Amino acid sequence: MRVIGIDPGSLITGYGVVEKNGGRLLHVDNGCLTTKRKSPLPDRLLQIYESLMETIEQFQPQAIAIEEIFFSKNVASALKLGESRGIALLAATQKKIPIFEYSTRVVKQAITGYGQASKEQIQQMVQRLLKLPEIAQVDASDALALAICHLNSYKLKEALT
Amino acid sequence: MRVIGIDPGSLITGYGVVEKNGGRLLHVDNGCLTTKRKSPLPDRLLQIYESLMETIEQFQPQAIAIEEIFFSKNVASALKLGESRGIALLAATQKKIPIFEYSTRVVKQAITGYGQASKEQIQQMVQRLLKLPEIAQVDASDALALAICHLNSYKLKEALT
Repeated sequence: MRVIGIDPGSLITGYGVVEKNGGRLLHVDNGCLTTKRKSPLPDRLLQIYESLMETIEQFQPQAIAIEEIFFSKNVASALKLGESRGIALLAATQKKIPIFEYSTRVVKQAITGYGQASKEQIQQMVQRLLKLPEIAQVDASDALALAICHLNSYKLKEALT
Repeated sequence: MRVIGIDPGSLITGYGVVEKNGGRLLHVDNGCLTTKRKSPLPDRLLQIYESLMETIEQFQPQAIAIEEIFFSKNVASALKLGESRGIALLAATQKKIPIFEYSTRVVKQAITGYGQASKEQIQQMVQRLLKLPEIAQVDASDALALAICHLNSYKLKEALT
């Protein structure tokens, strides 16, 4: 089972590819899809879309885990976040990959056992769980955490539905 | 000059196609792209995307006018609106149609001369300006207003830049 976690953002979209084989988690890749800050918004959205389509094609995941967002600093940042999230959801749907949404709280709980964990705690725990040589960038680390969260919960989810 | 106005929404996306020939506005088409309320969000976003791509192909506009959003009832509705708006911006960009954004206040001002005009006032004025046989639905009417706003201002914009 291979999963891509996606942490969408208007400037940086993190992705993390993780596999689970016989109970063991295996890190495949992670990174940040960046857009040019000076580009007009529509061009940035197209860049995110094309990068995500390429990433999905390259890694051929069986599932995509994406952040479910309820809160945001303010309405303006929620609008921007929504634009990037909409693009990520579209790319996954076009590639016919099942999408699973997890709230930040659930991801933090799954990774550290504590729903209020800090970004740094997530980064450290993701590094430990995946035996990464170094700590991943924040957005990539959040994306890896989403993928791990899905890999450690989807069997439970299947059993419950 | 033919323009499509787009009023994005998570359930209904309005569109309005208007031409301007020799100073006269001509109504071409308007309508509402609806999505199934019960469909999962990613499927709804794909429906909006595919409908918009078809609409752009069918009417071959020289420009797309879309609402610029600063405010929303709350963060949750801003996120949803952002998702649909992101999809609309992506579709326009993929089709290489120039995008112009106008705030609600500017559109209302352009159509009725009054930035605080009600939705009903916009509907009535759009009907009068385009000589529509009947009042268009709210979302389609807002989209027509966006197209008219662009057609009546783009020359001024060009002159200023």
